[in-house]
Amino acid sequence: MDKIFRVNMTDLTTTVEDVPAEWAGLGGRALTSTIVATEVDPECHPLGEKNKLVFAPGLLSGTAAAQSGRMSCGAKSPLTGGIKESNAGGTTAQQFARMGIKAMIIEGMPKEDKFYSLHITKDGVTIAEESELLGSGNFAVIDAMVEKYDKKIGVMTIGLPGELKMASANISVKDPDGKIRSHGRGGMGAVMGSKKIKFMTVDSEGAGAVPIADPDTFKKAARVFAKAMLDHPVSGEGLPTYGTNVLVNILNEAGGLPTRNFTYGQFDAHDNISGETMHDTIVERGGSPKHGCHKGCIIQCSQVYNDKDGNYVTSGFEYETIWGMGANCCVENLDEIAEADNIMDDIGVDSIETVVMFGVAMEAGILPFGDGKGILRMLREEIGKGTPLGRILGGGAGNVGRTYGVTRVPVVKNQGIPAYDPRSVKGIGITYATSTMGADHTSGYTIATNILNVGGFVDPLSKDGQVELSRNLQIATAAIDSTGMCIFVAFPALDIPECLPALIDMINARFGCELTGDDVTELGKKVLKLEHQFNLDAGMTNKDDRLPEFFKTDPVPPHNAIWDFSDEEIDEFWNF
Amino acid sequence: MDKIFRVNMTDLTTTVEDVPAEWAGLGGRALTSTIVATEVDPECHPLGEKNKLVFAPGLLSGTAAAQSGRMSCGAKSPLTGGIKESNAGGTTAQQFARMGIKAMIIEGMPKEDKFYSLHITKDGVTIAEESELLGSGNFAVIDAMVEKYDKKIGVMTIGLPGELKMASANISVKDPDGKIRSHGRGGMGAVMGSKKIKFMTVDSEGAGAVPIADPDTFKKAARVFAKAMLDHPVSGEGLPTYGTNVLVNILNEAGGLPTRNFTYGQFDAHDNISGETMHDTIVERGGSPKHGCHKGCIIQCSQVYNDKDGNYVTSGFEYETIWGMGANCCVENLDEIAEADNIMDDIGVDSIETVVMFGVAMEAGILPFGDGKGILRMLREEIGKGTPLGRILGGGAGNVGRTYGVTRVPVVKNQGIPAYDPRSVKGIGITYATSTMGADHTSGYTIATNILNVGGFVDPLSKDGQVELSRNLQIATAAIDSTGMCIFVAFPALDIPECLPALIDMINARFGCELTGDDVTELGKKVLKLEHQFNLDAGMTNKDDRLPEFFKTDPVPPHNAIWDFSDEEIDEFWNF
Repeated sequence: MDKIFRVNMTDLTTTVEDVPAEWAGLGGRALTSTIVATEVDPECHPLGEKNKLVFAPGLLSGTAAAQSGRMSCGAKSPLTGGIKESNAGGTTAQQFARMGIKAMIIEGMPKEDKFYSLHITKDGVTIAEESELLGSGNFAVIDAMVEKYDKKIGVMTIGLPGELKMASANISVKDPDGKIRSHGRGGMGAVMGSKKIKFMTVDSEGAGAVPIADPDTFKKAARVFAKAMLDHPVSGEGLPTYGTNVLVNILNEAGGLPTRNFTYGQFDAHDNISGETMHDTIVERGGSPKHGCHKGCIIQCSQVYNDKDGNYVTSGFEYETIWGMGANCCVENLDEIAEADNIMDDIGVDSIETVVMFGVAMEAGILPFGDGKGILRMLREEIGKGTPLGRILGGGAGNVGRTYGVTRVPVVKNQGIPAYDPRSVKGIGITYATSTMGADHTSGYTIATNILNVGGFVDPLSKDGQVELSRNLQIATAAIDSTGMCIFVAFPALDIPECLPALIDMINARFGCELTGDDVTELGKKVLKLEHQFNLDAGMTNKDDRLPEFFKTDPVPPHNAIWDFSDEEIDEFWNF
Repeated sequence: MDKIFRVNMTDLTTTVEDVPAEWAGLGGRALTSTIVATEVDPECHPLGEKNKLVFAPGLLSGTAAAQSGRMSCGAKSPLTGGIKESNAGGTTAQQFARMGIKAMIIEGMPKEDKFYSLHITKDGVTIAEESELLGSGNFAVIDAMVEKYDKKIGVMTIGLPGELKMASANISVKDPDGKIRSHGRGGMGAVMGSKKIKFMTVDSEGAGAVPIADPDTFKKAARVFAKAMLDHPVSGEGLPTYGTNVLVNILNEAGGLPTRNFTYGQFDAHDNISGETMHDTIVERGGSPKHGCHKGCIIQCSQVYNDKDGNYVTSGFEYETIWGMGANCCVENLDEIAEADNIMDDIGVDSIETVVMFGVAMEAGILPFGDGKGILRMLREEIGKGTPLGRILGGGAGNVGRTYGVTRVPVVKNQGIPAYDPRSVKGIGITYATSTMGADHTSGYTIATNILNVGGFVDPLSKDGQVELSRNLQIATAAIDSTGMCIFVAFPALDIPECLPALIDMINARFGCELTGDDVTELGKKVLKLEHQFNLDAGMTNKDDRLPEFFKTDPVPPHNAIWDFSDEEIDEFWNF
């Protein structure tokens, strides 16, 4: 029987509890958001004693289903002030699921100024004081744990920015190869830092296989599902070949590649940082264009990026990071961006928030546009060392904007707007505006239909159909985020008729239940409404579902498009 | 006939306009808030082109009425994100009134990165480019303008923090002696900086006397009003002798003197910083315990504070500043606090926001509690020079809290909570929570009735009657802030029956109208509701009418009181 592991950091005790009946059918985001909404006071200080940090593997995590290795992490966000779910690959979702950990809830806050580590086994959690690794980077923590245990040990860790509770701090997760995956957005690392936990190790020794109610049906459905992944041109070809960075040239062509802190929609040097250039560079230097973030991934959108001498630089090198430091900060050198990506992994800051922030910092005159070396220096010497300037930068784009009096600050709910200009790709603007998570492309990825012609086509420059598109995708995504599936299953799910039924069949076969497509849609709606209510209870209103003023006043070339949705049109989103 | 002066900083033009009929009966706060609510988009960026900076003298400013020399300054606040009115003494209210300037509205924003100065005469405003005094302190600006014009020139100016748009930047106003008064709260200096105006000069040459409809009645009423000021023990004796700093020992005795960033309610070294000690020190060093912030002030709560060698250090040296750097930062040396007061005047930051901020900075470990010399250094070398640390600090208490992950951050609507602990003086807590201005003691000064037995007595430690007390005082204050009267007229107005009728008689005699006491109350209500609606339209909700969490969880000695109002009890405030 699955259990809830509960860790109380105030009195340093841990318990293993039965799963309440009302949580039994939930996993991933549905479960973390339900627990946060049930147990966390929406008005509490996100870095105070009353916030809770919750981890939950998805419903299908730990099974043989392709793409099912995502772990959800939830809390009240110190960045947005609202609810947050941030999911990541790595090994922990599968370990938790196999150990029967339905969720782990970390609550309270130590009274003393000491840090701790958690060690998680199938029997429970033990807490140990930690001093040796304080201030260390995430790679050092992972190396030390692999040394102490073995290569299979699961690790979740924060760097100095997390210890210092910077709002852009993320939680880094060891992947099967000892590289880093991240619960990136919303400052979950700061919440972990506020609980004074430097790292957690997960030892799944003795854990069995995940029980499957109907193994034959499961196997059959899993095969259909995997085939759909491989058959779709995006998940089966584009992503494996070029990674997510396939999007640089596509968005540049569409005029939706935000450039120079969202001043332009195209970047002259797009070829220098494109997925095509990256692929050739990787191959030429003996890296690997394919790499999975978790065991069982068949898309393999990650990669191993080496330097000129063939030495490892980074992996999990995503489009949004490359766009943000590239086009948005006008840095033309892909090697510098790769190096920054590695440093961000090591110090533990969200690479999206951080690159959006650097665009604002450049606008503020803290460093010049195009200064890639300046970014590297500031990551290492300022954010990485917690200097006053580092604290400002580590506070994210909104914090830099407030502290330097900048008005062109691309954030919604104080979270940095990622790599798609909402003026020229209007559907994603609706997602940014309305997402319970703050600006977040993954929460309703309209780029699929606005730009990639997946799931049909909705003209990115017209307002028509965007609210409905974003709504449908956000509902579907909330459900997918609850299964432990990676978001890219949405591509075949939208285009290949057998895909979504196979996903539902797997859930039914796993638990012996009889969910229909409508049930899954209902789950997605329920999750969104629950999260929305939490945000309202935390003090947000529909005024928080708005894009920054400059999108409405400053047209973006080449289409000279502006953000022209009325408040009423945006608020239609919540009519479901 | 009175006029509206309008300055457009986008195209650098100025106009003189007739007063719209609906603004005719308004002055001071009623007028600035009406103009801001009418002309400013509540959702605009406070440092952007759409915000407007409005100045309006009170209804009685420029007359011979005692205490009537306050100028109101309004805008959308970059500190709170809501509406703001901040009033100050000095010479400009009387100059504006005599020149027939009902209000001055500064709008737009220069496209080029250049600064300007405004020169205001009875005929209009001229705009000149300014480079020479950029970066200068406020005293240097005032000295330069006195040199350029003469001693009578009115000056409003910002220091470097204002130029850099720090949210604690204030607007400094020259008083009759060339000292500084401040539109202190809410970052009005940052708004002036965003309009790229370094300073404004007011030359009232050729201005006549303010027209009085019924001079005899006015004179008679003014005499009764002035007598009430002098007869009341607070305005006639306490304030003239000890200044506002008379309150240190009183609040310490009441257990409501927030100490060590709001951890305790009493300060061991209170005698070192008390009004009594200050008075004796001033007299001993040849300073002056009495000084008025504007011509016609008969309370004279300001002073001239000299150093050990008899050299001028500061004036307008208020209780809240002394409390904040003293008890709240545990600095025991009054000379250090006086020096800090002078630096804050010179660089142009709100001395309340700044001292509350230093309490949070000490909690964050940026400098140790008690380190007065550290505060002086940070004012001069960090805030005063706009370093990264200075930007963090100049962003105010909330900004330091966010940037350093501090949970004990005494702010409401992001504005620092002043010198009275809301747990042990509960009426003022209702004012902090509900004021449209953010935490602001002056907007409904329940200390009068909770602590000073003025206007009756409401037990500070009980919840009974506090909402009604705060509501009545906030309504009255909104009206008084519209007359140009200093807030201390409230003491005699609450206790001496002839005082308030005399004030109304003066307004009626000035304008030839027939206002009643009820009309004045209605005006106060109307102003509050107008401001409240602006804040709601800006995205605030009743959740913004809350004190920080720690007041509810951490009891404050010596009474071990907590903040125990329910949300429903607080929200009762708006039922009028």
